[in-house]
Amino acid sequence: MSQLPRHAVLPLPHLHTATLAIALRGGSRYEEREEAGLTHFLEHMIFRGAGERAGLPELMEAFERVGSEPEAYTSEDAITLVLELDPARLREGAELLADVLLRPTFSEIEAERALILEERLERVDAEGHPADLEDLAMGLAFAGHPLSRSILGRKSTIESVTPADLHRWRERLVQRENVALAVAGPLEPGEAAEQLAPLAALPAGDALPLQPPLPPASGPRTTFHRAEGPQTELRLCFRAPGERDPAFPALCVLVDLLDGGPTSRLPRELVDAGLAYNARAELVALPDGGLVALELAVAHRKVGEALETLRSLLAGLTEGVGGAELERAALRRGHRERLERDDARNQAEWAARRLLYDLDPDPIRARAAEGAVSAEAIAELASTVFAPENLSVAGICSRPATRRAVKAALANW
Amino acid sequence: MSQLPRHAVLPLPHLHTATLAIALRGGSRYEEREEAGLTHFLEHMIFRGAGERAGLPELMEAFERVGSEPEAYTSEDAITLVLELDPARLREGAELLADVLLRPTFSEIEAERALILEERLERVDAEGHPADLEDLAMGLAFAGHPLSRSILGRKSTIESVTPADLHRWRERLVQRENVALAVAGPLEPGEAAEQLAPLAALPAGDALPLQPPLPPASGPRTTFHRAEGPQTELRLCFRAPGERDPAFPALCVLVDLLDGGPTSRLPRELVDAGLAYNARAELVALPDGGLVALELAVAHRKVGEALETLRSLLAGLTEGVGGAELERAALRRGHRERLERDDARNQAEWAARRLLYDLDPDPIRARAAEGAVSAEAIAELASTVFAPENLSVAGICSRPATRRAVKAALANW
Repeated sequence: MSQLPRHAVLPLPHLHTATLAIALRGGSRYEEREEAGLTHFLEHMIFRGAGERAGLPELMEAFERVGSEPEAYTSEDAITLVLELDPARLREGAELLADVLLRPTFSEIEAERALILEERLERVDAEGHPADLEDLAMGLAFAGHPLSRSILGRKSTIESVTPADLHRWRERLVQRENVALAVAGPLEPGEAAEQLAPLAALPAGDALPLQPPLPPASGPRTTFHRAEGPQTELRLCFRAPGERDPAFPALCVLVDLLDGGPTSRLPRELVDAGLAYNARAELVALPDGGLVALELAVAHRKVGEALETLRSLLAGLTEGVGGAELERAALRRGHRERLERDDARNQAEWAARRLLYDLDPDPIRARAAEGAVSAEAIAELASTVFAPENLSVAGICSRPATRRAVKAALANW
Repeated sequence: MSQLPRHAVLPLPHLHTATLAIALRGGSRYEEREEAGLTHFLEHMIFRGAGERAGLPELMEAFERVGSEPEAYTSEDAITLVLELDPARLREGAELLADVLLRPTFSEIEAERALILEERLERVDAEGHPADLEDLAMGLAFAGHPLSRSILGRKSTIESVTPADLHRWRERLVQRENVALAVAGPLEPGEAAEQLAPLAALPAGDALPLQPPLPPASGPRTTFHRAEGPQTELRLCFRAPGERDPAFPALCVLVDLLDGGPTSRLPRELVDAGLAYNARAELVALPDGGLVALELAVAHRKVGEALETLRSLLAGLTEGVGGAELERAALRRGHRERLERDDARNQAEWAARRLLYDLDPDPIRARAAEGAVSAEAIAELASTVFAPENLSVAGICSRPATRRAVKAALANW
């Protein structure tokens, strides 16, 4: 008997648009060396015709009829399709996306191949080595693991992929247990689940396993891409607990204290203080581990001072967090929660990803868990995460003196 | 007696966040040569302390308390402040923004000066000449008019601006008739207007006049910035009717037919056909005139073919638009309208700009006017707009052969 993949309906009766998100395990994490880039290539080809709508124009016309142009994106461990639509057209939207997953035509592969090769050129240097800060950082933080590879894949693979390769790869990904659906918007849960019925046609089959396990942390490590620019760009990545870890809500709060708003530590102590042109923190969240990534753009001559300030700012977090700082984080969380309540797309994408890795898809409960995090838990987590062995640093900088300054600063951590 | 500037309250009782937008006439259009860049500099400094909250951190803490970090942006003819907030805190938000407009402290100007100089470096070449496609295109389309100048201003001005200069400039802009407010969200109109009362403290004074008038069109013209890149980048600008022109709704539909969705003409005939990596259309809308800007990224060797396809695609629009194409535009408009109904921020920003130039701030009526546009009106408008005398072309390309190909293609228009 056919049945739906894992799915969630998030009723937002006050809104006027619905979003259907479909997440599939895929991406660099699941690709062998010679398969690297297949998920991303599939993302590019997935909407170029499906079933009777064999070409891109016919398929796009059908999507416009139910709402809008669908989107797809690839991460390290998922490919996600997103469709914003007229809530009255949910069944037709589900039919179209089922067609896309089950009967894609992969028409005109050369047009997308050219685009992907172009996209790759923006992330490698003339010799084909990674020149993109995120790629460099992933390569270092997960060295030896498939996660270390760019989601775009190697040039030789991109040049040689055929529609048959894409069909084989699609068959690996499009299996019921490897897929999760979420729909958010002005929908009645029972009815909405019925309207998703076309997606019950996905073949039965297992989820791709989280194998191999993540490598142990082995920092501190550094890598540099030599390129001249007006600033030194740095991405510091600390290995951190994953989405399945009970400490994950505390990790979300920790990242918010670093860069959740204008009074967070990075904007205040680095940007406003004139030490960095830009300073951002983000979480790379995987079910079984993750990274706190801190990205800086700094005038070459200020690199040492900026890194010393950053070190001391992170050390401060391990010593405890004051009530006023936590209260500001709570205010920011409240604001984000109000925005999310009016954002069907955000809710659908979040829930699909959570379900894909067997996590609770309720955004309200997730925010509540963050609200329950204590100052002590944050300080304890900061002590664990901001340890030198967890740290990988990727940089873009051509000046030997600046590279030496980075290494000298890290020697003190 | 003090009174509020022009204002609109857009009640969206179903939502959970409100947005307050304040638009002021300003930007390159209103700046004399030696003042160029003052509005943009003001944008950078406007939130660096106000009234008793003399520094950035205190002011940001107060903003987080009412909702979130405020934003500001500068265009050719306006500076806009935007605050997303807790609807229960609207009065406090209005107080804070009134403080920002009336009692800014402009603290730590050197930090922002460094950022602005850095921002400028991304838009000029080593000799200080414009290297940014938009700046190049504005310079050509409005040659001899203040609109031709970059909103960032000259290096010498950025280097020498003082807090006193900023105060003088702020006093020019912060005058009641030069300002428009709009607030959208779960608000009762009468109450909301009361809560805006702190903004009635803005001094009485006139709007900056739309002087000098726009120069006559004198195309076709071309300009090139010589830089090596993987593709030739082109921005073709056609002079077009402004926001106050009865043909403006037809112009909005025309731009949608070019690039409103995946079945529009530019994605279909240029990108999907493999002639361009990217092809976008946008409207630069001013009250008394505007531009239809078409931006292309094309492989050097395909420039001639891409421009010939573009020419024929535009000529096709002057010959008439079919019912199916108009129906797809109507579907896209319906989708956008549903999204807008749930988007307080979009509505507030739109309404503030419309009010600033004495235009109807109701988004529903604006969409309805677009819905009433006939196929004949579009074809007629296309014939007027896509005439060679309306055309300016800016390009980034270092290859003489490619530049010759552009000029040869334009000779046929």
